[in-house]
Amino acid sequence: MSRSRLAIALVHHPVLDKEGATVTSTLTNMDVHDLSRSAKTYGCTDFFVVHPIEAQRVLCERIVAHWTHGSSAKRIPDRKDALSLVRIVSSLSDAVAVLGEGTLLWVTAAREIGTTLSWPDAARTLAEGGPPVLLVFGTSWGLGPEVTSKADAVLAPIDGGSGWNHLSVRAACAIALDRLRR
Amino acid sequence: MSRSRLAIALVHHPVLDKEGATVTSTLTNMDVHDLSRSAKTYGCTDFFVVHPIEAQRVLCERIVAHWTHGSSAKRIPDRKDALSLVRIVSSLSDAVAVLGEGTLLWVTAAREIGTTLSWPDAARTLAEGGPPVLLVFGTSWGLGPEVTSKADAVLAPIDGGSGWNHLSVRAACAIALDRLRR
Repeated sequence: MSRSRLAIALVHHPVLDKEGATVTSTLTNMDVHDLSRSAKTYGCTDFFVVHPIEAQRVLCERIVAHWTHGSSAKRIPDRKDALSLVRIVSSLSDAVAVLGEGTLLWVTAAREIGTTLSWPDAARTLAEGGPPVLLVFGTSWGLGPEVTSKADAVLAPIDGGSGWNHLSVRAACAIALDRLRR
Repeated sequence: MSRSRLAIALVHHPVLDKEGATVTSTLTNMDVHDLSRSAKTYGCTDFFVVHPIEAQRVLCERIVAHWTHGSSAKRIPDRKDALSLVRIVSSLSDAVAVLGEGTLLWVTAAREIGTTLSWPDAARTLAEGGPPVLLVFGTSWGLGPEVTSKADAVLAPIDGGSGWNHLSVRAACAIALDRLRR
């Protein structure tokens, strides 16, 4: 049996700010690059950049176009392979619509919000094959409860054993994919 | 027995460019943040930013001071904990001098340059305790042969199973620390 299709999503709304209020974060250029490169390395089929504001989606389109069709596509062709995975959508449901009915939504969180799935079990599920999985990351201080409460699974917080856990989303995504697809 | 002291270093010279020539790369603000945060999460004692050019070291000092003593130290105290690990040095030997005699230099590479140490063996060595280990990452297209030829160990390239392997150094460092210290 072949392994499950795996895609990632980076959400800019609804996410939490430092005080726990629901906000919309701005697009970060390096997130687009780093998450694309990690997704490509670990064989993900899609990287959904989720932003509800049109001007931010247009900005993301310009970044992607520069690296997939502009001068940088010629200068660093490897980057084109990675950025080609980017799909720009306005909501997570648009991402699920692309992947098809039955897609499982797996969320990640730095804080303990009620883990339902361990990393080894998640890796095993993917390896055994089944419906597509969309692995969702939040920007800012993490995904809002509107997203996490609807998830099919909540993965365990990444624990480095130090009691301190404030990884960048670029680092967290890389570690998550390595644990799931190594 | 207690585990080995583990530190990381990010080298800006000697590194390779796209054509394989030895160059000096510029400091990237987000590398300083992301590698600090990953180092702190996985209990590293130091993050050496290695740059031979004084103006670049001064720039790095300003970035670190802004987050450890400036206005951002108050705004986001977690970041202060991470950036406090940064030690700015002009060469790897200066970093080794801080860690002490007998420090092991372990290098990472995206290409196969003659692996001598697997990730599980490396994790085991650290857990068993012994001399300090300095885990070295290169910017640009990777560490120059002047560095890799002097290493005590060359870790295996990170392989995501796709045949494509162009992770950002921010992602590669996060994955490496998770594999070594999880």
